[in-house]
Amino acid sequence: EVALTSERFGVRRLPFARLGDRDVAFFERVLPGRVVTDPEELKPFNVDWLQSVRGCSQLMLKPQTTAEVSQILRYCYERNLAVNPQGGNTGLVGGSVPVFDEIILSTALMNRIISFDKVSGILVCQAGCILEKLNEYLEEQGFVMPLDLGAKGSCHVGGNVATNAGGLRLLRYGSLRGTVLGLEVVLADGSALDCLASLRKDNTGYDLKQLFIGSEGTLGVITAVSILCPQKPKAVNLAFLGCQSFAKVLETFTTCRAMLGEILSAYEFMDEKCMELVERHLKLSSPVTGSPFYVLIETSGSNSTHDEEKLNNFLEQTMASGLATDGTVATDDKKIKASRALWSLRERITEALTHDGYVYKYDISLPVGKLYDLVMDMRARLGRRAKNVVGYGHLGDGNLHLNITAESYSHSLLEAIEPFVYEWTARCDGSISAEHGLGFKKKQFIGYSKAKEAVLLMQRFKAMLDPKGILNPYKMLPSGS
Amino acid sequence: EVALTSERFGVRRLPFARLGDRDVAFFERVLPGRVVTDPEELKPFNVDWLQSVRGCSQLMLKPQTTAEVSQILRYCYERNLAVNPQGGNTGLVGGSVPVFDEIILSTALMNRIISFDKVSGILVCQAGCILEKLNEYLEEQGFVMPLDLGAKGSCHVGGNVATNAGGLRLLRYGSLRGTVLGLEVVLADGSALDCLASLRKDNTGYDLKQLFIGSEGTLGVITAVSILCPQKPKAVNLAFLGCQSFAKVLETFTTCRAMLGEILSAYEFMDEKCMELVERHLKLSSPVTGSPFYVLIETSGSNSTHDEEKLNNFLEQTMASGLATDGTVATDDKKIKASRALWSLRERITEALTHDGYVYKYDISLPVGKLYDLVMDMRARLGRRAKNVVGYGHLGDGNLHLNITAESYSHSLLEAIEPFVYEWTARCDGSISAEHGLGFKKKQFIGYSKAKEAVLLMQRFKAMLDPKGILNPYKMLPSGS
Repeated sequence: EVALTSERFGVRRLPFARLGDRDVAFFERVLPGRVVTDPEELKPFNVDWLQSVRGCSQLMLKPQTTAEVSQILRYCYERNLAVNPQGGNTGLVGGSVPVFDEIILSTALMNRIISFDKVSGILVCQAGCILEKLNEYLEEQGFVMPLDLGAKGSCHVGGNVATNAGGLRLLRYGSLRGTVLGLEVVLADGSALDCLASLRKDNTGYDLKQLFIGSEGTLGVITAVSILCPQKPKAVNLAFLGCQSFAKVLETFTTCRAMLGEILSAYEFMDEKCMELVERHLKLSSPVTGSPFYVLIETSGSNSTHDEEKLNNFLEQTMASGLATDGTVATDDKKIKASRALWSLRERITEALTHDGYVYKYDISLPVGKLYDLVMDMRARLGRRAKNVVGYGHLGDGNLHLNITAESYSHSLLEAIEPFVYEWTARCDGSISAEHGLGFKKKQFIGYSKAKEAVLLMQRFKAMLDPKGILNPYKMLPSGS
Repeated sequence: EVALTSERFGVRRLPFARLGDRDVAFFERVLPGRVVTDPEELKPFNVDWLQSVRGCSQLMLKPQTTAEVSQILRYCYERNLAVNPQGGNTGLVGGSVPVFDEIILSTALMNRIISFDKVSGILVCQAGCILEKLNEYLEEQGFVMPLDLGAKGSCHVGGNVATNAGGLRLLRYGSLRGTVLGLEVVLADGSALDCLASLRKDNTGYDLKQLFIGSEGTLGVITAVSILCPQKPKAVNLAFLGCQSFAKVLETFTTCRAMLGEILSAYEFMDEKCMELVERHLKLSSPVTGSPFYVLIETSGSNSTHDEEKLNNFLEQTMASGLATDGTVATDDKKIKASRALWSLRERITEALTHDGYVYKYDISLPVGKLYDLVMDMRARLGRRAKNVVGYGHLGDGNLHLNITAESYSHSLLEAIEPFVYEWTARCDGSISAEHGLGFKKKQFIGYSKAKEAVLLMQRFKAMLDPKGILNPYKMLPSGS
């Protein structure tokens, strides 16, 4: 069983109230049949997807409406009960599960689509809608969600917004800071804040919703989202290439950006170690082999003839100039299966890693030219102490996923990795969390990426919006300051 | 001469300190030779570009560095002197000039480019850089600014960010909320806040910079900007069409979005009244005439053959189906002059309007289908009391610029327009300021687009960051609440 977070990390519980029978009775009145107290049933919601942290909450609440979320928080605020907002529980930094006995407030039953406008492409839905389901719904109407990520089958859109998820389409459709048009949020004291606009442009006052995007449930509970969805591209093509060096991966990217221009929708890279793990643990096989690096390129466009011509020109040049030594494409519509198989090689790396042992995960933003140096430095530093040191990620966004596996958790290995990895990143003015957030596991390291004054200001915002600190405590902001 | 704002609008001065000789002496020590006290020299900086509001500041300061801005604000904060941050003074809602005797803090001399990375396309520069100059600098390196607007020749990038400027490229490159990667800001008390990251992705804590984007100088003075710049498109094509009805303008847009897809970079519309004014006051002539509506379409792409083919297919279909009745294109690179002439027809409407008399300006976000109904309703309502009622704007973004001209300012005409225009907008869940901001002239109307709780929260942010209220007072947030 996963060790209790409080024990492994030696955290001290803050003086919140303890849950009593009268509290449970209150919640059962408010949410009849949607209150979970059975320890067995609670188990999966106390442990994160990575099996790396575990809380001991005795209560999960499943509201269906914003009014119910308001009632819950108003009560918890008065009673000084701590709350852990939870979406699909797919977070990678221990932000989505309780640290101690926080009440789990799940958005699982808040999964209603409120409206979709086919002219503007604006979707309004409750926070608990599952990303993949939203995408399926939109595809039927000729649109897609502006974000996509490996966890799409279970992550909630509210959680995506709360963690400012990046993912596979950011290169093309930009970040949630631009595509999220409105939010409805319930604040710590239970008051609802309606910023659920459905307009592309609105300059009337401060853009309050931005503060909640990426706030990891520490400032309020997102209950509904309004988001701008792009049209479903008429043509989607994939190419999977092998490159003989990271320098060639970079040069291929520059060539690709120039030749594919506006139709480039993803440029993902992975090293051969990733490919080995995906093959070993998930029995996936790659159509391209024998290279130290692999690149997955996706184009999305409105004219398949033009797109294929662009892609073919690019591939010809890439092969002729020796940038790539081997490659395969999936361009035909009948080749949907081939596309899925290629995407799986990239998307399922996270899953393959969990089968390899305990995973030390790092999600780093760096100047793109230095992206792989960190992986090589780490590999040299750890030597045989690590089972595998792998690097992959969204190269087009300067985002490296550095993962280190070992047979089991070891404090001494952790000390060999940290703070080395953060110091290395800070020296390059990188970010120690590009898209995963800080959650529980990274919060003490915020200073490597943010100025002291900035952190102090964040703490003032937190104190203003949640003066009792009941919302997702022990997360995101450093303790003891 | 323009009437004093305080007199025309009956505003009362807040109890800030009055500027004294000792203050001026202090500033002259800090900014030798960069302190303006000559009333003649101050005149243009006390009046807005539209000649609609006028303050009576006796002092303008021209810092060159962030440290100087800090020194100025620290002093003003201690002395309780009010400050009006000013960029290119091209704002349209009276936000960029003093209301009373606020000290003008100009960013005119903060015009240094700090760095540009050709791999990532990330530009870092001081706030006072002029938009057009930045664009020229970038074009030499194969990039462009992600925003473009009529005032580009004089507006400052810091002012663009402070007002969350939208403009002509938003349809393609998205809003500044996505493209601005970092900001350096000096707060009211003079402390500098460094959020000047140059990373596409960074999820370490709350995204503080977002609060300053669009805050119109009321929360802090932006001193430097980091912004993600797209590659300069290899091919830019323009089409200018005449449509017989607004319904056809809309249908042309839907067709255009489907057929031009990812290369569509602007879809602007204007009514025949706009065209008349541009011809009459600026002597520009349109190559397409005799239609009640005109549409300007721009494509930007990486392959001129593909782009022209897409555009030609689209134009053929538009003409064949009678969506457009007449049209012209500028596709050849040698036709740069033709392109500029076409863009001028759209970009210089604002200027033409100022020659038509006093202008009542409205910048509204609406569901795109209802965009022109407001113009027609207003025209019917005002009848002969208005000289001209015109509509144009960024149709692709649901953004209407509604302008009403009269020989001179008249309070009774204003009362016929407002609050009617705001009530009309609120009924459609629109925004009463899509991109211009609220400034001095629209601040009392925020309630038509934002919930009361949201406005209260904005006021709490303001009180927290600027407890004495010295930064751009009388602007953005409603008074007397």
